[in-house]
Amino acid sequence: MALETFPNPHPDRHYTIDHVVHEFTSVCPKTGQPDFARIRIRYVPGPRCVELKSLKLYLQGFRDKGIFYEDVTNVILNDLVAACSPKWMQVKSRWSTRGGIHSVITAGHGRPDSPASPSPS
Amino acid sequence: MALETFPNPHPDRHYTIDHVVHEFTSVCPKTGQPDFARIRIRYVPGPRCVELKSLKLYLQGFRDKGIFYEDVTNVILNDLVAACSPKWMQVKSRWSTRGGIHSVITAGHGRPDSPASPSPS
Amino acid sequence: MALETFPNPHPDRHYTIDHVVHEFTSVCPKTGQPDFARIRIRYVPGPRCVELKSLKLYLQGFRDKGIFYEDVTNVILNDLVAACSPKWMQVKSRWSTRGGIHSVITAGHGRPDSPASPSPS
Amino acid sequence: MALETFPNPHPDRHYTIDHVVHEFTSVCPKTGQPDFARIRIRYVPGPRCVELKSLKLYLQGFRDKGIFYEDVTNVILNDLVAACSPKWMQVKSRWSTRGGIHSVITAGHGRPDSPASPSPS
Amino acid sequence: MALETFPNPHPDRHYTIDHVVHEFTSVCPKTGQPDFARIRIRYVPGPRCVELKSLKLYLQGFRDKGIFYEDVTNVILNDLVAACSPKWMQVKSRWSTRGGIHSVITAGHGRPDSPASPSPS
Amino acid sequence: MALETFPNPHPDRHYTIDHVVHEFTSVCPKTGQPDFARIRIRYVPGPRCVELKSLKLYLQGFRDKGIFYEDVTNVILNDLVAACSPKWMQVKSRWSTRGGIHSVITAGHGRPDSPASPSPS
Amino acid sequence: MALETFPNPHPDRHYTIDHVVHEFTSVCPKTGQPDFARIRIRYVPGPRCVELKSLKLYLQGFRDKGIFYEDVTNVILNDLVAACSPKWMQVKSRWSTRGGIHSVITAGHGRPDSPASPSPS
Amino acid sequence: MALETFPNPHPDRHYTIDHVVHEFTSVCPKTGQPDFARIRIRYVPGPRCVELKSLKLYLQGFRDKGIFYEDVTNVILNDLVAACSPKWMQVKSRWSTRGGIHSVITAGHGRPDSPASPSPS
Amino acid sequence: MALETFPNPHPDRHYTIDHVVHEFTSVCPKTGQPDFARIRIRYVPGPRCVELKSLKLYLQGFRDKGIFYEDVTNVILNDLVAACSPKWMQVKSRWSTRGGIHSVITAGHGRPDSPASPSPS
Amino acid sequence: MALETFPNPHPDRHYTIDHVVHEFTSVCPKTGQPDFARIRIRYVPGPRCVELKSLKLYLQGFRDKGIFYEDVTNVILNDLVAACSPKWMQVKSRWSTRGGIHSVITAGHGRPDSPASPSPS
Repeated sequence: MALETFPNPHPDRHYTIDHVVHEFTSVCPKTGQPDFARIRIRYVPGPRCVELKSLKLYLQGFRDKGIFYEDVTNVILNDLVAACSPKWMQVKSRWSTRGGIHSVITAGHGRPDSPASPSPS
Repeated sequence: MALETFPNPHPDRHYTIDHVVHEFTSVCPKTGQPDFARIRIRYVPGPRCVELKSLKLYLQGFRDKGIFYEDVTNVILNDLVAACSPKWMQVKSRWSTRGGIHSVITAGHGRPDSPASPSPS
Repeated sequence: MALETFPNPHPDRHYTIDHVVHEFTSVCPKTGQPDFARIRIRYVPGPRCVELKSLKLYLQGFRDKGIFYEDVTNVILNDLVAACSPKWMQVKSRWSTRGGIHSVITAGHGRPDSPASPSPS
Repeated sequence: MALETFPNPHPDRHYTIDHVVHEFTSVCPKTGQPDFARIRIRYVPGPRCVELKSLKLYLQGFRDKGIFYEDVTNVILNDLVAACSPKWMQVKSRWSTRGGIHSVITAGHGRPDSPASPSPS
Repeated sequence: MALETFPNPHPDRHYTIDHVVHEFTSVCPKTGQPDFARIRIRYVPGPRCVELKSLKLYLQGFRDKGIFYEDVTNVILNDLVAACSPKWMQVKSRWSTRGGIHSVITAGHGRPDSPASPSPS
Repeated sequence: MALETFPNPHPDRHYTIDHVVHEFTSVCPKTGQPDFARIRIRYVPGPRCVELKSLKLYLQGFRDKGIFYEDVTNVILNDLVAACSPKWMQVKSRWSTRGGIHSVITAGHGRPDSPASPSPS
Repeated sequence: MALETFPNPHPDRHYTIDHVVHEFTSVCPKTGQPDFARIRIRYVPGPRCVELKSLKLYLQGFRDKGIFYEDVTNVILNDLVAACSPKWMQVKSRWSTRGGIHSVITAGHGRPDSPASPSPS
Repeated sequence: MALETFPNPHPDRHYTIDHVVHEFTSVCPKTGQPDFARIRIRYVPGPRCVELKSLKLYLQGFRDKGIFYEDVTNVILNDLVAACSPKWMQVKSRWSTRGGIHSVITAGHGRPDSPASPSPS
Repeated sequence: MALETFPNPHPDRHYTIDHVVHEFTSVCPKTGQPDFARIRIRYVPGPRCVELKSLKLYLQGFRDKGIFYEDVTNVILNDLVAACSPKWMQVKSRWSTRGGIHSVITAGHGRPDSPASPSPS
Repeated sequence: MALETFPNPHPDRHYTIDHVVHEFTSVCPKTGQPDFARIRIRYVPGPRCVELKSLKLYLQGFRDKGIFYEDVTNVILNDLVAACSPKWMQVKSRWSTRGGIHSVITAGHGRPDSPASPSPS
């Protein structure tokens, strides 16, 4: 499923967009068992923003794919960066418990320009 | 609805005002369906402060407007900045879940002057 | 009600005192309706500390006063600074919901000296 | 009750130890009424670590002592610093509500050396 | 039990892996009583990543070992660093309450290189 | 908007369906101000079940209607009972805070037959 | 302040109305100190319902009254019963902590008729 | 996938078994979109108990099936009852939010015999 | 310390009073170590109510007493019943964790007369 | 390890004792992997009460035992009933997540006599 984008409506401002995807599932390539995660995508948009429905369908494309935690997190980041050229982007995946352990993978792209409005507190 | 303001009662001090609006609704321009959000407005006032009742009425003005998440967040920021010339302002909108995804947009204006009283901890 | 103070028992150390007042009420000067807030006072003491019972009585003095959120927060800060000359002080007021909006005002005084024991984490 | 210590098993590493004491009680010197607190002790150990059982007994020694919030926090810090010469230490006491106000006192000693492993978060 | 590793699938990117182990138990060397902890392992991978199942089995190896809080935290860190040469690693152990006190030990290795994607907020 | 229904797929079993609507808004007939609520609909289906999408659209039909809390709760109940003839139904509306007060209205229809599977605990 | 009522819009149905008042304050007749409470009023309406704004103003009438916890709870119940003749009513007051103790008083009037729609679970 | 069972190790006692399945996904037959749920299965075992691993695999069998909320809940109940003949069983499915609405379906089988150990409180 | 009482201001009504004491400490008769608990006292008053300040002082009387969990709970109940002759009373003590176990003891006196206002839900 | 008991200090009263054991571990007989649970024991004591330290040691006796969830819950109940002849007893075990499923087993003994002090609410 191709990721669709739309023009950033406020391209001159340095602001952040944060999408939390509650329903993500892929397959463990080692055991063939399904994995479940919550995916958080945060970015400072460049020229274009990610369209939400195509993002949902793109992530559904992993439903039957065998792929490891570390890999899928980086693949999603790479695909999103390629699609919308953000100024900064971070993808975080929180996986449900396996064998008494739960894991969180966080990968990022770019370095935020001096932001226009850091918090004063 | 015009935003009303009143003179900052302590214009010499660098302090922050934070309004959390629990009840915001607008319309998705693509589907015509209502969207719901919580809007948080934080600012360091300049010469004038935003009057709370007019803020409520101003935000109710979006009830029937078709407008995207990213756009409405930046529009609110622009209107508030124009109305009260804050030293710093940030608008954050948290949207309810759509298709298993919820989104948060954060836009800011200005850069806090060296604040008079940062937290020591 | 006058604010009472006592000598800082450890004047050579840079440390913080934090009082959270759960029960504060004043009156809205516009509508005549009562307002309710939680007030948080944090400071690095100088030569003197604020006595807790007199603080309680001082804050009860606002029970019948008509005063706006922004103003009362700064007035409390000014009075406390005058009473105990802290190295740093911050007053934060969190107000209960009015018209679907709740507000938080944060004002500070001074700048923390290079603190003796910042957190390493 | 004397505080006991044991040799730091990893003296070359810069790491933190954090003890949260849920059950602390002393007496208000003004009213004679019991006070209750939660005490948090965090430190980067130097040559020696605090032995946990002697810490418990040391803190029980305040059960019948009349002492103010600010004072007891600094006294505990001083005693612990004298006992184990930490690279950095912080003592935080959170007191239960009195007259609708609860208080938190935080005192520290030393300045963390450039830590070996700050969080990249 | 030997720790197994696998090649970092994205060795060029600076990203973090975070494993939270809910079920850890060892034995107090002083009392012979079992201790229980939650162990959190966060790292920026270098050439290799820790394999999750071998991590589980490695940690189960402490089930009958008599070892102190401070020691076990540093031993786990040392073993993991030796196994996978991370760019940065932190091990945090949170122990269940003993005598009204619970403890948290945090040890780290390395210093994060200038990370590729710090958070803008 | 008409409520649509579909045949109960398991008409012989006594079971419950529970829909929680997070996004409901209507208008106060007295002040003209928008009201916001969370609506919970629980029922034991009879011959037919309520179709979820038509339920959403039906409830959106109150967006511009001036109607009191007590009334709208009973009207929704009446309309749903007329549409699907449940064995038992309960409608609960939780309204957001107005003047420091929030309200909950609960109305029901019918009496549950001796249910086939009450909880044993 | 007189309590106002309006005709029950659905007098034939047995349903419940629940008002939670977050902001209540009165005065302790013994110490002269202000008391704070959260008041919950639940009832099955008879011929008339309590009007919300007059309820708010009625409760504000206790702001300067010296009255004990047990008494004020029963007085509110008596006044509300006299005003609207409910089929059943319960008033619960939760008071903020005094001397390490917080109190809850619950008083009721009437006995619910066999309700039309008890919960099946 | 067939459900496997094992003999109830304590067939003479009336006791309950409660399995909470955090990771369930099926497909909406109308939209083709994936649905996600948490499934709770509680039962008083008869002659046999459900084997946990086969339960997991059985529920994974719905991953690609198009089936409505109400139907899948009853189908799971029917299959489990057929497999292990419980004295009482209840299946509850909590579905993630769709269009601002989340749903819970609860179906049961049998009636608990007079249980041997009801709670006294 | 003697328990004081005052006349029930509404002796004809069947209502409940609930006091939650956050700060209770006694001594373990076996180990000599302090124990900490939260005590909850609920009752339907008869002719007299327990005065709050004398209740606080009465409970402080256990500060240096060696007494077991089960015993102190019943002793408090007996003393309170003797002092105020309630129609019904329940005392619940929740003790802080010892050896990984925390305990709750609940003892009661009397049987509530047919209460005047049971909850309809 | 034998369970020790002591004489019920208030044998004439019908009251409940509730022990929550946060730290329980046994071994899965099928996989050899450790299992972890929280065990809750509630009972109305008869002639004797369970001594807390011996309870802790008794439960530690399962640390290396291979035993299923359902079995261990009933075995603990049987052993405790044999040791102290309670009027009523319930044992509940909550197991940590395995394969995305967590389980709770609840077994009871006896039937509470008409309790002396049921809750009126």
